[in-house]
Parts: sequence; structure tokens; C-alpha cells
Amino acid sequence: MPEAIGFVGMGIMGVPMALNLVKAGFDVTVTNRTIEKCKPLADAGATVAESPEDISKRTPIIVTMLTGPQAVDQALFGEDGAAAGLGKGKLVINMSSVPPSYSKDLARRVGNYGASFIDAPVSGSKKPAEDGTLVILAGGEADQVERATPYFEAMGKKTIHCGPAGSGSHMKMSINLLLGSMLSGLAEMLAFGEKGGLSREVMLNVVLAGPLSNELFAMKRDLLASNEYTPQFPAKHMAKDLKFALDTAHETGAWAPATHLAAQLYRMLVAADRGDEDFSAVFDVLRGAL
Amino acid sequence: MPEAIGFVGMGIMGVPMALNLVKAGFDVTVTNRTIEKCKPLADAGATVAESPEDISKRTPIIVTMLTGPQAVDQALFGEDGAAAGLGKGKLVINMSSVPPSYSKDLARRVGNYGASFIDAPVSGSKKPAEDGTLVILAGGEADQVERATPYFEAMGKKTIHCGPAGSGSHMKMSINLLLGSMLSGLAEMLAFGEKGGLSREVMLNVVLAGPLSNELFAMKRDLLASNEYTPQFPAKHMAKDLKFALDTAHETGAWAPATHLAAQLYRMLVAADRGDEDFSAVFDVLRGAL
Amino acid sequence: MPEAIGFVGMGIMGVPMALNLVKAGFDVTVTNRTIEKCKPLADAGATVAESPEDISKRTPIIVTMLTGPQAVDQALFGEDGAAAGLGKGKLVINMSSVPPSYSKDLARRVGNYGASFIDAPVSGSKKPAEDGTLVILAGGEADQVERATPYFEAMGKKTIHCGPAGSGSHMKMSINLLLGSMLSGLAEMLAFGEKGGLSREVMLNVVLAGPLSNELFAMKRDLLASNEYTPQFPAKHMAKDLKFALDTAHETGAWAPATHLAAQLYRMLVAADRGDEDFSAVFDVLRGAL
Amino acid sequence: MPEAIGFVGMGIMGVPMALNLVKAGFDVTVTNRTIEKCKPLADAGATVAESPEDISKRTPIIVTMLTGPQAVDQALFGEDGAAAGLGKGKLVINMSSVPPSYSKDLARRVGNYGASFIDAPVSGSKKPAEDGTLVILAGGEADQVERATPYFEAMGKKTIHCGPAGSGSHMKMSINLLLGSMLSGLAEMLAFGEKGGLSREVMLNVVLAGPLSNELFAMKRDLLASNEYTPQFPAKHMAKDLKFALDTAHETGAWAPATHLAAQLYRMLVAADRGDEDFSAVFDVLRGAL
Repeated sequence: MPEAIGFVGMGIMGVPMALNLVKAGFDVTVTNRTIEKCKPLADAGATVAESPEDISKRTPIIVTMLTGPQAVDQALFGEDGAAAGLGKGKLVINMSSVPPSYSKDLARRVGNYGASFIDAPVSGSKKPAEDGTLVILAGGEADQVERATPYFEAMGKKTIHCGPAGSGSHMKMSINLLLGSMLSGLAEMLAFGEKGGLSREVMLNVVLAGPLSNELFAMKRDLLASNEYTPQFPAKHMAKDLKFALDTAHETGAWAPATHLAAQLYRMLVAADRGDEDFSAVFDVLRGAL
Repeated sequence: MPEAIGFVGMGIMGVPMALNLVKAGFDVTVTNRTIEKCKPLADAGATVAESPEDISKRTPIIVTMLTGPQAVDQALFGEDGAAAGLGKGKLVINMSSVPPSYSKDLARRVGNYGASFIDAPVSGSKKPAEDGTLVILAGGEADQVERATPYFEAMGKKTIHCGPAGSGSHMKMSINLLLGSMLSGLAEMLAFGEKGGLSREVMLNVVLAGPLSNELFAMKRDLLASNEYTPQFPAKHMAKDLKFALDTAHETGAWAPATHLAAQLYRMLVAADRGDEDFSAVFDVLRGAL
Repeated sequence: MPEAIGFVGMGIMGVPMALNLVKAGFDVTVTNRTIEKCKPLADAGATVAESPEDISKRTPIIVTMLTGPQAVDQALFGEDGAAAGLGKGKLVINMSSVPPSYSKDLARRVGNYGASFIDAPVSGSKKPAEDGTLVILAGGEADQVERATPYFEAMGKKTIHCGPAGSGSHMKMSINLLLGSMLSGLAEMLAFGEKGGLSREVMLNVVLAGPLSNELFAMKRDLLASNEYTPQFPAKHMAKDLKFALDTAHETGAWAPATHLAAQLYRMLVAADRGDEDFSAVFDVLRGAL
Repeated sequence: MPEAIGFVGMGIMGVPMALNLVKAGFDVTVTNRTIEKCKPLADAGATVAESPEDISKRTPIIVTMLTGPQAVDQALFGEDGAAAGLGKGKLVINMSSVPPSYSKDLARRVGNYGASFIDAPVSGSKKPAEDGTLVILAGGEADQVERATPYFEAMGKKTIHCGPAGSGSHMKMSINLLLGSMLSGLAEMLAFGEKGGLSREVMLNVVLAGPLSNELFAMKRDLLASNEYTPQFPAKHMAKDLKFALDTAHETGAWAPATHLAAQLYRMLVAADRGDEDFSAVFDVLRGAL
């Protein structure tokens, strides 16, 4: 019989992810700072706990899916935090997106209680979370990742073991860095072409018909064609992620010139009070229409 | 009955492209500076002419597929050049890759003879040329592009009318600029990830499993994984293309920061005497292994 | 009669600065974590205190000259910290180099005790500290800067009131950013010239004979000419300062492209284990001799 | 008795330079496409010739001071060009600013006539030309540079022998590259400081009081303080010079990242129709006020 699992954080991502665990037949206990947000899970058959501490006393595996380091710290080590219930045999899985240096530190602090740790940020947002098609980027000991795999399979379509604790976060950051530079690269190409008299619609057709075509570009096509940047992933989040990537480059000694460039471009959007628009608005920076 | 077509330039691209015209049933006349290279076409049923001048006197449509501006100039305006046979009703189609400013100038000079002009560089190399799956990027008057379309359909899978004369070349350059920045972006991501302890194989798996996946990255996967950069598209050609793009940015006032960056990176390969390797060798620049 | 002054931090800078206060006839009390380092001051006639707390109880003005935020925090708010003696009428002057955001926060925390605050980092190192020729970059209320001016005049040749608290630190960071980009700019010019066959000695002569000549370039001439980068200001410190500048650019929305570039160049030195050399070693990065 | 000298090009620079030769007692013959512009020289005692050919038949040394490669080509190799009078023992000195690759080519072409060649662009503009305080950057054979030195001494305060033919032009370009990056570096520092609340006047004071102070910054102080960029050296010329520098970097394999950056910044001014303002207007680019 599979181990019971606890889930802290009933946000946009947490609710569908936990629901998929319930649907897969696992014994799921959930909690959230605003406890009302647990209702969809209660309706689906999950147990609702008062606090992370409460969860960690009941279940051997505890997932956190929260907004960032501060919220994770609060959930694990704050008042009523999960740490109170940690010990040998317990496994903490942080699926929140956090910097790799924080993940490594978290692994150490959880380890101090005798418990195991996996960092497992996801690639994909609300829709894939609902559909159970997330890609899960896991960092930790191989046997613990294996232990977590049945749960990951309920939430995602693919689990990739990236290496020791912290590797999941580093992989997520690496992907985001490529995301940022690919989209600003496309925007630059469109701006360059327009200066030479080309129509952006025709350029998008050509790119999407050839070997450079990819889902990201297809997804952004209408936003770029219309200059209406309805937020799917806000520019301010990209700016923040790239800032974290620069911090990491500084720590590890990676060169990262395109990341430096992209960080500046998305920051210019934020500085122009357009950080809430989709990050494809970087097109306006590059065509001089800020 | 379709118009007869002439084809100047029996190189790696020219031979298969002209063969596809013959196979499609067109009346094809070919020539080449080294006349022996016309043999496969003669064998297939094409007429062989002595010179471009000879061609332009026989056929209303003349294609040039040569190594660059100098060779095109020679073929059109040199001794025995096609210009001698140009006049009202004739159509010159330059499919060689050349800078947009050269294409515009060429349109003007061909126009001086009363003839029409299309610039139509292709996206795709030897294999697609053989398979007739090139993408043809055409610039010129709409009626002339329509006139040329049956021939383009024999050589390619798709023809895109990009705008007036010069637009095809500008489109080709825009695509190459994106090609250069996307591949150096992937290389940077891999170098960044490795500094954080990730395996490049795992990273390539993750990228190719997600929304950023594209044919270019898939094609370069083994080269990047092995650091054996068997040339598909040599770095020195990318360096040259990006230099032309910077020239064009200077002329048109486009900003193009990522193109400036990529131009430097590929140039560093050339400066390190590695310009003959595939342009994916830019990975070695970014991981500090030059 | 002038107010008595306390001085916390008897390091390479602190000792000569405090000695100049004694020589100017002020009533000076000093302390240091390792109390023995106060000996030169005791010999010169200064009072030695046991702790920062001890100092702040005796003197209305307290200077801190320490290695960074952590040491300053310890000196002011740690056990035996100066905060215990703070109150209305007291003035804390932090002359240590710290990020502007830390300075602003420090002003607020000192203000919570009813005391006043100036941040006053210096431009210049050991020699100017001994000669009393430092330039003092002061941030704070005008009347408090005026109150501190007699003491600044004993330690430096010039005091510049940069604005409210935090402005001194921001000015210091701005100057360092220019320092970093000017020197890497000179290095790039030399590398560019050498590729064209010019002698670096001749280039340095030309630069130093013309309108671009400045003390920094003159000071680095021999290091650049010889490729022997005896540390005057280690590359790792420049890399750190530029990283702080990028953090600040991210916070304030400044663009700062040359700072991004310089940050990468100096970081490459650190990544190549050459962070202890003088920052003029950036020349080796730019001439491809890392 | 010194050799007679001819001077082609009576522009803003040429007139005062040739006048200084006359004042120094040399036997000077001048010419200009618009012959009326030779009047000040005739008044001062110089001989006026009809054409460059006429000059080269009279004088063993011929100076050209013209607007660029095209004008130099016309003066030397055009109709009535100086080439007709060239031969063994003659010396051509081109003082016009041209790309190094052009200078090297020119040396070869002049050499074909058996004559010697020096490229000798100057550092300094109208005022130093009048005052005879130019810095002369000479490239060529040592004995020829020695031969030219008495004339250079009449026109400038300093002659620097930079190496073989072409070296003068490469030195000029290297200096201009540093000029461009230093001024955009200062502009970036001011923009960065302003975002942190500093006054630009105070920042300029601090920079000009310290080891980074130089004549260039002093000269641009008022323009930067007022955002009134009265042209001393127009941005479009800097943009063009940096474009030539990028061309040269591409040819020689120099890296030149700051030059790439500066080229983009000045080009943005030109693209915004502000190329006629002083190049210090790059401040408006960096503070987001384009």
C-alpha cells in the first residue's frame, strides 16, 4: 500500500496537483494558510489538516507548493511548521520554484532533522497542472526520487531526475534562461525584419514553417502580431527569474552573456511600468516602441 | 505551355534544383563556368548552353544559383553575361544568398534592361534541394512571383512572397540571425547548467521534451553532447552572415543587440581557427573551452 | 571646543584615518575587535575603549570603518554594540563601503534610537588615508554633514555632500562602475590595436598624451605593458562591486549595459582563478589570453 | 634646404595645417577641387596649383587631407590625379581619416608607382590645427617618417610613429573606439546615479575631482549637465567610426565587446534622427530619454 502524502499550498497550481493525487487513489492530506482554499480537496475526498506541523505528524511524505523561499521557510520552520514532525524516514518535496542556492540550503536544513529532501519544480503552468501533464524536474537521492515517482506520475507526464538536491531548481532556472533568450531573439528578428520592410505576419509564417519552429513561438504568435501582450507569463516574473540566473552565474562563474542581455531587456519593460504584460512585450523594447 | 527556363550555376544546390525542374517536365537549359558540371542535367534531358548570354537569348526566365554577389555579377553583367539577352518580358530570378542591399541594387540594374527581377534565396540545404522540399523566400512584383511559382513548386515545398525585390534576401538574413542567436542561446544554457552540476544529456532531454523543442536543436543534439562539431553549417559562414546582418542593422537603424552578441561569439571561433567546424561549436566558446 | 569622536575599526584604513583625527587635535576614542590593533592610536594619544558600546556611551559621534554590512551590524547592534549608547544628539557615521540599500536601512535603524546617521564611504585607499587626501562621499542631513565636516577635513582633502542618507554609498558604487568600464575599455582598445599590429607601449603613449589621459590609466600603464598584474585593487573586489551594481540596477530600473558587460569580464577572471590579481588583468580576458 | 611640399585639400583642417607649413618657412604648393578655397594660402605666400597632378610634378612630397577614401582616390588616381607625377623618390602622405584596410591598400597602390607612402591621421580638430598642436599618428617606413617629421612638427605638437603603413589609421581607429566607450561609460554612470537619486552636477564634480578625471569628460561636462548637445563631434560620425571599427574587428578577429555595445548606442541616436547632435547625447539613450 502506498505511503500517505501531505500537500501544503492550495494555490493555482497546488489545487489541481493535489486533486490529481486524490484521483490517482492516494491517501492525501492538505493544508493552506487560508484554510477555506482546501474545500475543493475536501469535496474530492482529501483530509484537511490545520497546519503543516499537523501534516508532517500524519504523513511520511510532505509536498510544498508555495510562492517562494519565504513561504516555504514559514511552512517548514515557522510556527506550526512541518519541521516539528520531521525525522528519519520522512521525505520533504519542495515543488515551488526557488533559486538553486536556496534548494541546497533547504536540503541541508531538512537533513538536520534526519529527513530526506527532493527539490522538484515543474515545467508547465495551470492547464498542464489540471491535465496532469506537467514535466517534473527532480533533484535528490535516486532512491528518494524513486519513492516519489508514483506521486509525480499522478501529477505529470514526465519526471526527469536531474541530479542531487538543488538540481531540479538549477534545471528550472536553465530552462527559463533559454525561454527568455529565445523569445527576445524572436522579437529581435521581427524588429530587424520590420526595419527592412518585412511584414511581421509573413516573418512569423516563415519561422513557424521551418526548422526553428517551436511551441513557444506558436503560442506567442498572436501577441506579437497584434502588440497586445495579454499576460500568460508576466514580464516582471521573467525579469526576476533572469536576475536570479545572473546571481547564480556570479556564484558559479558561468559566463552567460545572452542572459545578461535578456535580463536588461525584460528589466526595461518593468522600468517602463509594463511588467504585468506578457514577457513577449519585449518586442516593444526591441522595436523602439517602449 | 509553360515558358522555357534557364539555370546558371551547377553547384551543390544548383544541380538538384535544376534536376527537379527537368523532372517536373519543364524545358530547361543550363550552363556553368566549368561546363562539365552540366553533365547530370544533360543526362536527364536538359539542354546545355555555352554561357549565360546564350541562355538569356533562348529562355524568357533565367535563374542564377551562385556563390555570392561577385559570381552573380559576372554571370549577369560580365563577358558573355546574361544581360546581353535581357529585355522587356524577361525575368531574372536570383536564388543565391546575397545581402539585401545587393538584391535591391540588382533589381535596379536588371530593370535598366527592361526586364523583371525576383530575389528568391532558399531556406534548406543539399538534402531538401534533392527532395524538392526547400522553402523559397521570394521578393518581387506579385505578378512575377506568380509567374515563377510553378517553377518554385518543382524545387520547393513552399514559396513565401516576402514583399518587393530585396525582401527575399532580407528574410533569409532575418532567419539566419535567429538561427545564430537560438543556437548560441542553447549553448549558453548548457554551459550555465554544467557550471551548476547538470549533465548536458539530461538538459538536452529536458529541452527536447518541452515547448522549446525544435528541429534545429534536435539536429545539433549529438554534436553538442559529444563536442564533435562535424560541419553541417560551418561557423565561418555564420560569422559572415551575422557580419552582413550587422551591416544591414547599421544601414536600417535596427538595434539588434543579440545579433551583435552572436556575431562576436561566432567570430571568436573563427579567430581560434575553428571556423570550419559546425557553428554549434559556439558551445566551446561559452563553456570556456576554446 | 569640538565634540569628542569615537572610531570603531582599526584596519588598514581605520588606523591612518583615526591617527589623522588625533593629529588634528580631536579627542579620539578607538576600539577594535582585536584590541591590540589599537596600539598605534594609544601611542599617539587616543583613548582605547573596550567595545563599541563603551565608545557610544562616551562620545557623541561614532565612526565605523569595517569590512562590510555584517561587521557594521555586529559593531552597532551586536553584543556590546554601539546601539546601547545611542540616543538623541548622537551621530553615527559609517565610512565602510556597503550597498546603498544597506545604507538606507541602516539610517532607518539608527534613527529608531533617536540618533542621526551619515553614510560616508571614501574614494582612495591606503596611501591617501595616510596622507589625509581621501575624498569623502557623504550622505545625510545637511546639518549633520556640516557637524561632521571638521572631522572629514582631518581625514580627507575634499568632502562632497551627495544627498540624503544612502547617497554616499550610491555615489561610491557609481564611481566604481565607471572605474570598471573605463579600465576594461582601455584593455579592449589595447587588444584591438594589437590585433592590428600596434605595439601596446606606443598605444599607451598615445592615450596618455591626449585628452583621454587620466590618473587611473597612468597608474595601470606598467601592469598592462608587462602583463604582470600586481594587485592594487583585486579583480575579485571589482567583480563583487559590479555584482552589487547590477543588483542596484535591478532594484532602481537603471539600464546599465556596459556595467553588465564589465561584470561578465571581471567574473571571467575570477572563474579562471585569477581574482587575486589586479583588475587590470581584464586585459588578458580581452586579448584571449586567459 | 628642405624639400618642397604639396598639399591637396583646403577644408576646415587643411587650410590651417597648410598655413602652419607656410609660417614655418617651407616651400608650399596647394590645390583644392574648388580652387577659390586656396586664397588664404595664396595670401600667405603659398603657390597655388591647378590640380593634384600639377602638384605631384612640382613637389617631392604630397599631402592629402580630404573627407575620406573616395576623395583620396579621386585626388590620387582620378583625372588630373597626383599619380601621374608619382615615381621613385616621391612621398605621399595621407592625413585624412580612413579605415586601416584602405590605408594598406593605398600604400600598395602608391608603391606600384615606385613612390613611398605614409598614413598620418591626426588626433585633434580645428583649434589644435590652427594652433599647430595636433598629435600626428604616422604609419610607414622609419626613414620616410623621419623625412616627414620637420613638416609634422610645423603642424603638430607631437608625432608618433605607430608602425608600418596602415598603423596610423589603425591607431586613430583604436583611439576613437576608446573615446566612444569612455563617453558612453560616463553617460551610463550618470544615468545609473540619477536612478538612485544623485544629482548629475554632483556626480560630475566627483568624477572630475578624482583619478578618473580627463579632458574629454571636462569638455563634455556642460553638455551632459544641460542635456543640450551642441555638436563638437556629431554622433553620426562616432556611429560611422565605430562601424568601421567593427568591420576591422571582423577582419582581424578582435573581440571588442564594448565597441559592439557603443556602436549600438550611438546608432540608436542616429536612428532617432539625432545624429547631428554631439555624441555626448548618448546620455539620453542611456537614461531612457530618447
